[in-house]
Amino acid sequence: MRAYGELNREELLAMKQEVEASYEEARGKGLKLDMSRGKPSKKQLDLAEGMLTVISSNEDCMAEDGLDCRNYGGPVGIPEARRFMGDIMGVPMDQVIVCGNASLTIMFDTVSRSFTHGVLGNTPWSKLDRVKFLCPVPGYDRHFGITEYFGVEMINVPMTPEGPDMDLVEKLVAGDESIKGIWCVPKYSNPQGISYSDETVRRFASLKPAAKDFRIFWDNAYCIHHLYEEAEKQDQILNIIEECEKAGNPDMVYEFASTSKVSFAGGGISAVASSKANLEEIKRHMNYQIISHDKINQLRHVKFFRDLEGVKAHMMKHAAIMRPKFETVVSVLEKELGGLGIGSWQMPKGGYFISFDAMPGCARAIVARAKEAGLVMTGAGATYPYGKDPEDSNIRIAPSLPTPEELAVAADIFVLSVKLVSLEKLLEEKA
Amino acid sequence: MRAYGELNREELLAMKQEVEASYEEARGKGLKLDMSRGKPSKKQLDLAEGMLTVISSNEDCMAEDGLDCRNYGGPVGIPEARRFMGDIMGVPMDQVIVCGNASLTIMFDTVSRSFTHGVLGNTPWSKLDRVKFLCPVPGYDRHFGITEYFGVEMINVPMTPEGPDMDLVEKLVAGDESIKGIWCVPKYSNPQGISYSDETVRRFASLKPAAKDFRIFWDNAYCIHHLYEEAEKQDQILNIIEECEKAGNPDMVYEFASTSKVSFAGGGISAVASSKANLEEIKRHMNYQIISHDKINQLRHVKFFRDLEGVKAHMMKHAAIMRPKFETVVSVLEKELGGLGIGSWQMPKGGYFISFDAMPGCARAIVARAKEAGLVMTGAGATYPYGKDPEDSNIRIAPSLPTPEELAVAADIFVLSVKLVSLEKLLEEKA
Repeated sequence: MRAYGELNREELLAMKQEVEASYEEARGKGLKLDMSRGKPSKKQLDLAEGMLTVISSNEDCMAEDGLDCRNYGGPVGIPEARRFMGDIMGVPMDQVIVCGNASLTIMFDTVSRSFTHGVLGNTPWSKLDRVKFLCPVPGYDRHFGITEYFGVEMINVPMTPEGPDMDLVEKLVAGDESIKGIWCVPKYSNPQGISYSDETVRRFASLKPAAKDFRIFWDNAYCIHHLYEEAEKQDQILNIIEECEKAGNPDMVYEFASTSKVSFAGGGISAVASSKANLEEIKRHMNYQIISHDKINQLRHVKFFRDLEGVKAHMMKHAAIMRPKFETVVSVLEKELGGLGIGSWQMPKGGYFISFDAMPGCARAIVARAKEAGLVMTGAGATYPYGKDPEDSNIRIAPSLPTPEELAVAADIFVLSVKLVSLEKLLEEKA
Repeated sequence: MRAYGELNREELLAMKQEVEASYEEARGKGLKLDMSRGKPSKKQLDLAEGMLTVISSNEDCMAEDGLDCRNYGGPVGIPEARRFMGDIMGVPMDQVIVCGNASLTIMFDTVSRSFTHGVLGNTPWSKLDRVKFLCPVPGYDRHFGITEYFGVEMINVPMTPEGPDMDLVEKLVAGDESIKGIWCVPKYSNPQGISYSDETVRRFASLKPAAKDFRIFWDNAYCIHHLYEEAEKQDQILNIIEECEKAGNPDMVYEFASTSKVSFAGGGISAVASSKANLEEIKRHMNYQIISHDKINQLRHVKFFRDLEGVKAHMMKHAAIMRPKFETVVSVLEKELGGLGIGSWQMPKGGYFISFDAMPGCARAIVARAKEAGLVMTGAGATYPYGKDPEDSNIRIAPSLPTPEELAVAADIFVLSVKLVSLEKLLEEKA
């Protein structure tokens, strides 16, 4: 296969005619496919059916400390749920608060609280002229959405295969007191599937930010979301809570996790882990915001998964469903785009996404083409703050929701769209 | 029975000796009773056992619009839950958003959003020098807690048997642009059990506040929480959403409700009803804060209660448990304190509380005395902003949690504490 870049105008035109025919054929089918969001598939959701009835009587509703989960009380979560979520994050239960159904809400509320009440006695961000966040890119659109909603100025930091560019992170946080935070998905990152190296985690823990109220928002969303069973094919990252303690920066990080992609999306439980001082501040806030979270659902989770081993075993059932989907997409990409020089991607070992980098200036057009042919992708640009990918290159592929059959068709439409737009771009350049 | 105020010093001393002996006897029993919070009793919680398994299979998890409740989506709630909560509030479903397990959280988040983002285009409250709220007193401590946490200046407005003193409310909101809201529990109010008269509701709907972003926080927490089955013994209030529309003030009110005291406390569902413009603003905020609430739990509620008639019938089972408790407390109050002139109370027709007004300057001492004898009451002052009852008179009695047997004992301890402190006070005055 010759790279498209090496083809002359006539060859490009011929190729384009060929690709266009295939594309039109696909479009004619009137398909309706969705690879836009990291939604679990029906089969994955079915795996947790037993959770629906694991609490089936009034007597089942007691927490191990005797608290009746059907009543008020237990604002920080029932003990067994704190232990369970702590085990998932590798954090002692007394450094964990278990909350409602969405870790996104804990993150949002943390930013909101920092604006209205400040962080550990520092000036509320609403009283400051400027508040900035570092945003490793490509990244998670909903993270960037929160900071955009609060008017935070977002600064792009490029991702490397080891995590965010730490030279840049260190330099920026040390030199600018208005930089108050950084969004991180440290394991199987959204969308690239990159896991931070030990050095990256240690450098995070040893940051010397100018702002005393600088915080790392460590969204460990995919901490147990491996695609492979073999230990050597599973990424492991260092424990940021421990590393921050060792480095003398215990208050510098909030870690978040949830079971949204373990049990039910929107019907799971979430948790935050942090230092004692940070948790006290969160508890004080929560004391006004809520009497207690849904402890019945917390108990459901512990009764169903039992413990870390139980939930790890459950995640292997997810992996068995997810792995072939990832492999299908990547094999179509390799087969259809390999060697063409019009895009790059990696096969991740976990998480929910495959990140695709098209030729600069092509991502929006590719997503638009795919949509015309019935395939909804994540909006191009979504992986960057303000929805602006300066290169217009990155596209997030979310292979979880479609069935394997749909996925093969979807991947075909995607590669046809990539080819078509790339050919148009190359022809334009040669015009 | 002669009023204590008519007794002379010797009679008071003799009476005190007698009461003290009874009090010491009660104290000697080492009891542990709790009338502090509006928590449902075990028997009430047991009533909803069927809800635990009403969704028992994967197939049960589909909402009426085909949405899979186990997956992301449906940020405003599933249609049947919006209709259900709308019916409870008397509001069309398209004016309802169903949220998580706590209406308190919706209220908190509404105040928080007003501080960070402002209300319908008005200046964010965080940018204002002063923000004030009107607080009908006595009222709900968690309402006052939210505004206190945000540094809002709270202004007491006395309650009357018809609701808040509307002459004062009208005058205050018309004359002060910094008054941004008022906390209301319009039906079976916390703690007095007062339901607002039609005139009061209409005057609320017709308010002419100086502040364009003035909002009524209408916490309809006890809208279906009657103690009696007979229609004439059930309070009805006018529909504030409709009245505000009629009065040309559709945006002036947020109404809140939940099933915390219908199904499970902390395991229920909550909702907010308001105008289209207000709901759009809430939706925009929620879009950044959460992907979707726990729709499985929303569906559980609708499957279990079915509809308004179903939930009303269920509430009558609650009433059968609650009514004797209220009657026990009130009958002990009447029997032991009637005619003594040392306290006043009313028997409410619904809600969760009995409000007791002691002689001025006695409430704190009474609560302390009760505690010494093993009975935890709501802290004196809690029914007032900043925990400061200017008269030190009001005490909230929460009879729901204890068993009937415990309750009789608890009521005895309470009246002994009232008598003892009142006698001490009168003796002090005569000294």
